[in-house]
Amino acid sequence: MTVIEASDYTGHPEIMDGRVKTLHPKIHGGILARRGQDEQVMAENNILPIDLVVVNLYPFAATVANDDCSLEDAIENIDIGGPTMVRAAAKNHNDVTIVVNTKDYARVMTEMQANSNAVTKATRFDLAIAAFEHTAEYDGMIANYFGAMIESSECETDCGHQHSEFPRTFNMQFTKKQDLRYGENSHQSAAFYVENDIQEASVATATQLQGKELSFNNIADTDAALECVKEFDVPACVIVKHANPCGVALGDDILSAYKRAYKTDPTSAFGGIIAFNRELDAATAQAIVDRQFVEVIIAPSISDAAVEVVSAKKNIRLLACGDWQGQLTQGHDFKRVNGGLLVQDRDFGMVEEDELQVVTKVKPTDKQLKDLMFTWKVAKYVKSNAIVYCNDSMTIGVGAGQMSRVYSAKVAGIKAADEGLQVTGSVMASDAFFPFRDGIDAAAAAGISAIIQPGGSMRDQEVIDAADEHGIAMVFTGMRHFKH
Amino acid sequence: MTVIEASDYTGHPEIMDGRVKTLHPKIHGGILARRGQDEQVMAENNILPIDLVVVNLYPFAATVANDDCSLEDAIENIDIGGPTMVRAAAKNHNDVTIVVNTKDYARVMTEMQANSNAVTKATRFDLAIAAFEHTAEYDGMIANYFGAMIESSECETDCGHQHSEFPRTFNMQFTKKQDLRYGENSHQSAAFYVENDIQEASVATATQLQGKELSFNNIADTDAALECVKEFDVPACVIVKHANPCGVALGDDILSAYKRAYKTDPTSAFGGIIAFNRELDAATAQAIVDRQFVEVIIAPSISDAAVEVVSAKKNIRLLACGDWQGQLTQGHDFKRVNGGLLVQDRDFGMVEEDELQVVTKVKPTDKQLKDLMFTWKVAKYVKSNAIVYCNDSMTIGVGAGQMSRVYSAKVAGIKAADEGLQVTGSVMASDAFFPFRDGIDAAAAAGISAIIQPGGSMRDQEVIDAADEHGIAMVFTGMRHFKH
Repeated sequence: MTVIEASDYTGHPEIMDGRVKTLHPKIHGGILARRGQDEQVMAENNILPIDLVVVNLYPFAATVANDDCSLEDAIENIDIGGPTMVRAAAKNHNDVTIVVNTKDYARVMTEMQANSNAVTKATRFDLAIAAFEHTAEYDGMIANYFGAMIESSECETDCGHQHSEFPRTFNMQFTKKQDLRYGENSHQSAAFYVENDIQEASVATATQLQGKELSFNNIADTDAALECVKEFDVPACVIVKHANPCGVALGDDILSAYKRAYKTDPTSAFGGIIAFNRELDAATAQAIVDRQFVEVIIAPSISDAAVEVVSAKKNIRLLACGDWQGQLTQGHDFKRVNGGLLVQDRDFGMVEEDELQVVTKVKPTDKQLKDLMFTWKVAKYVKSNAIVYCNDSMTIGVGAGQMSRVYSAKVAGIKAADEGLQVTGSVMASDAFFPFRDGIDAAAAAGISAIIQPGGSMRDQEVIDAADEHGIAMVFTGMRHFKH
Repeated sequence: MTVIEASDYTGHPEIMDGRVKTLHPKIHGGILARRGQDEQVMAENNILPIDLVVVNLYPFAATVANDDCSLEDAIENIDIGGPTMVRAAAKNHNDVTIVVNTKDYARVMTEMQANSNAVTKATRFDLAIAAFEHTAEYDGMIANYFGAMIESSECETDCGHQHSEFPRTFNMQFTKKQDLRYGENSHQSAAFYVENDIQEASVATATQLQGKELSFNNIADTDAALECVKEFDVPACVIVKHANPCGVALGDDILSAYKRAYKTDPTSAFGGIIAFNRELDAATAQAIVDRQFVEVIIAPSISDAAVEVVSAKKNIRLLACGDWQGQLTQGHDFKRVNGGLLVQDRDFGMVEEDELQVVTKVKPTDKQLKDLMFTWKVAKYVKSNAIVYCNDSMTIGVGAGQMSRVYSAKVAGIKAADEGLQVTGSVMASDAFFPFRDGIDAAAAAGISAIIQPGGSMRDQEVIDAADEHGIAMVFTGMRHFKH
């Protein structure tokens, strides 16, 4: 195959260090010409047809990912000629094939070899869409990058610094993983999209090994269960129902963790989602199948024997998401409102045990400290207001989603009592501070022995005094975990 | 000013019905030349500097918004030359001014008149970002449009039909309305973005008339309150706390609606968000200020006298969002999961009174029917599982966010009892069907006289029989409203 330099073909030199090479009528006429219609004008202007365009754009994303990237480097890595050829070829996909992803090379070559060097219409259309997806993402990255530089009082607006984590416009592209039968309710249509460059094992990376198609609510609940179980290093199980953990426990192995998590609230666990932070083994799979109806089981991996066990219940959705060790990545969380989008950092905060501030006369014991940390991690994943009772690394009562904190405490207590679980000696976590002492008084009445909460109320002293009166140990985290 | 046709300047004819006009080195060399560096090459190639580029792209969005748009029309309205000039000029903003929005014309002309026909560096940088925002949005629309055509078994892939509501990639652009002090919690940074083309009065269109800066949680809760109050045609008030309505009522005017909504749960209403569907008047504003601590008040408009009343409490955030009558527009709702995004239709469903199916021997009275419809609309906005008790168009107890339905019913009952509100004779709504008869038995014990729920359980007959045993009237909606 003969390679011809662009400048040899156009008869125009490459100028300005390559800023202008392909922006020429002989290139773009060759790409954009309508075959069977524009032949005469092509001949008049010495334009040859260009049937296949393969482009790798200047690596803008890789360039600006470098912390030392200067404004000049970023600007020089904005490709102009490349996207123009990509867009022109995509527009004229009726006659032209455009390839922008290296993963498409083999597919196109195979098709051409089988097809007298031609590419089918369906493939050309598919590749044209990929081309616009590529340029949309490319210009979205550029807009995000420069759009974060423009609000500052300290620097010149184009000093090359990032002045806000949040650009002036927020440009996003997600790729469809699957259409869903419906959304949160059957009259809503829905689809599941994933990030283009997922860094971390998650519900988005999960492979479904068996079972019915995942529903909208399955995916949301599986995410809630999996993200909670990721908080723990030792074997753990989280059971989620309606977006809230209804049972969480640690164990020597995941079988004991599951049995203990299940005990918290067997009623809610029915039809729930179960997540583990270890490979699902056959014994645990059997324990689940024997005990309860379950919608989804997710774990980093599933043993062959466990797959075999679960296959007896064909409807159970069995997901392997891969291992997340060392992968946790910062990212953005969204909250949709009508007409807009709230964008925030993912809640990556977690207090360490040695950062806890003991505020009461009574100090927590080592066992209580361990339980307080466990309970705190669970409370982070319970919808606000959240009150969680735990004992021995197992949830005893989960009070979720109430409009006043004292009702969350009441719910946790009622649920524990209904399941015959003893609250006396348990510890309690509150996802935000207690505004009044009534929450502490209620906890004492229920038999709570130690409390973990952020602190920071105007009435902290009143709350501490209440704990001291009741002989309760209390620690402050200095960090709140609202989750609505 | 002399106008020169592009072809007169380039010496190259406009060819292929305008597909190739400006894609020429004399145009792009003139835009991309680095001033003070590329003068010689410009002279050698007869390239003149182009200092100001003003482009209106082919109207792709307007073209495809037409239901009759053919694939050919859509393709012809993909602009190639325009975005190339826009992107080239934006890349070279160090020397070139790019204008893509008509709203920037006056600003640029004013600046040039004051500045010997020059545009400042800061403005050029700002406009360059606007240029990439524009091309990102443009190609995102193209990718969304064609990306919805490619999955079908019935048609050719490029038949011009939309085959899925959900394109292969989902491309979005939002514009920042404000940076926020922090996100859901103080260790999370955040910003509030709005849609580029908002069709409907919402929290995103709201103007803040006074008060402290809106927080992340303020915006989310204000949205929850406002969207709920929009369900009602007669004067209504919704009070939200922690994303859930804690009091909703109708009234002859909004003053009576507020007083009744407040009575449901004064404890939770403290520090809440209050939304109205009528202009806020001075009497209602005074009643709020006298009665409670409030974070946000939102209404379609605020009378001058009400502004004056609220000004006595400087911290109250007072928002006017405009009138939404006749504006309700379909759109997409998002649920973020780690690594992905669930996209669904906004929940626009609402059963009409004449679509209700009476399933019990006892028929609801006219008053009960009215209350059932009211209660149902409230339940749609309460986090699942949701059970709401109402009487006389006022909430009596709100049971939100529980992992099993029977606990939501318990919570509603406890809250009503704690506030001294009589449940006897009230009606009850459940956002999803009752899986067992226990929920009906509990409702009967509480004194509920009529029930509204979707129906659709395998045990519907058992549930209907229970209602008949207790002499309760029950209607099915055939439509569920989960909201997590």
